[in-house]
Amino acid sequence: MPGTLYGVGCGPGDPEQITIQAWKILQRVPVVAVPQGSQSDTSLAAQIIQPWLPPTTQILRLELAFRLDAQLTEQCWQQAIAQLVVPLQQGLDVAFVCEGDSSFYSTFGMLTRYLPSDIPRRWIPGVCSPCAAAAAVGMPLVQQQERLLVLPALYHLNQLAEACAGAEVVVLLKMARYYRDIWQWLQAQDLLATSYVVEWVGWPQQRIYADLRAYPDLCLSYFSLMVIRSSR
Amino acid sequence: MPGTLYGVGCGPGDPEQITIQAWKILQRVPVVAVPQGSQSDTSLAAQIIQPWLPPTTQILRLELAFRLDAQLTEQCWQQAIAQLVVPLQQGLDVAFVCEGDSSFYSTFGMLTRYLPSDIPRRWIPGVCSPCAAAAAVGMPLVQQQERLLVLPALYHLNQLAEACAGAEVVVLLKMARYYRDIWQWLQAQDLLATSYVVEWVGWPQQRIYADLRAYPDLCLSYFSLMVIRSSR
Repeated sequence: MPGTLYGVGCGPGDPEQITIQAWKILQRVPVVAVPQGSQSDTSLAAQIIQPWLPPTTQILRLELAFRLDAQLTEQCWQQAIAQLVVPLQQGLDVAFVCEGDSSFYSTFGMLTRYLPSDIPRRWIPGVCSPCAAAAAVGMPLVQQQERLLVLPALYHLNQLAEACAGAEVVVLLKMARYYRDIWQWLQAQDLLATSYVVEWVGWPQQRIYADLRAYPDLCLSYFSLMVIRSSR
Repeated sequence: MPGTLYGVGCGPGDPEQITIQAWKILQRVPVVAVPQGSQSDTSLAAQIIQPWLPPTTQILRLELAFRLDAQLTEQCWQQAIAQLVVPLQQGLDVAFVCEGDSSFYSTFGMLTRYLPSDIPRRWIPGVCSPCAAAAAVGMPLVQQQERLLVLPALYHLNQLAEACAGAEVVVLLKMARYYRDIWQWLQAQDLLATSYVVEWVGWPQQRIYADLRAYPDLCLSYFSLMVIRSSR
């Protein structure tokens, strides 16, 4: 009988924002798999769970980069799967750790696509970054009749106009490199005062920029998100 | 010095889906405030945290109903605030517990609006129900470039058409009473096979209806959500 692969959402950064369910799994499994992306040298998920890991846990580092060349990406993921399958086929349970929630723009979804179908898998939810960001700022993300739209990436400002027309609250992930363009658009729409950015939510280096009127230009890290409120 | 009011997200149902941060606050505060809505006799949030509460914790039950009459609602909330402020003014910390996440369609947002401004407040995030539902079903809620739209309520099927035009993944909260109409619309759009409903996510009575082609009619509880995927 193969072991079970757990996709464990570890919350966005603060080790205490992991669930008891996730914590129990990390105490129990002999192997923890951590993703190594191209964006960072050390896995963020690995840093989040570091305080909770028993010293005997085996760490399996998986390179899960997305390359421009689809074939290279495929090769890279197949290699990671080959590594992951070894302990699972030996009957050992493995926890694959994800930042935030395991079903919210997580690599675990992609990983399970490549996983041989006879390997049982379980998804363990976690706190996702927009919820943690709103909590850090100290206001509701959404309330009552407000619609919420999450845009994982932005290719054109038209998308932002459409998004704000279709939802009272819009969350932009990975917006750091377009910040200045977005700021100008928000200024034209008179939406700066009710919008905010949280950088590194839950981490010691967390920074909050609330009421964006004062910040026409920000040099933000990749791990930043913006919340735009068009209802007041 | 007044005490701090914590808005504690307790996850959608499973007591183990509470964070360590939330758990620590519940261990420490002398008073826990639980909402009593008009939808249920006993507070769901109170049931979620029940296994974690020290026997000495004082429970403060607050009636936080929404009435059709705005003045009655206002009166009801002002009365709850008056109860809540007593221990806070005595310098005691109070945890107000919320199902799911404290910033995601939670009563805590409304409560803080009425709270006297000199009372410090902190938001503690939790696992929100759409993430827990996707985990229960065992698939990504959203991945890669997919946009996510959450509709907290539905007044007309046109809204659903707009929603599905603007996002690859649409989450409908509180859709139980319109299920049959939604089902017929999804059938016409050929979206039944990739849509699912989770009722009572995280609770012992949780039920999953995946691939909705088999369920033209369902008598669902109020605590149900639907995920519609228009990308495959």
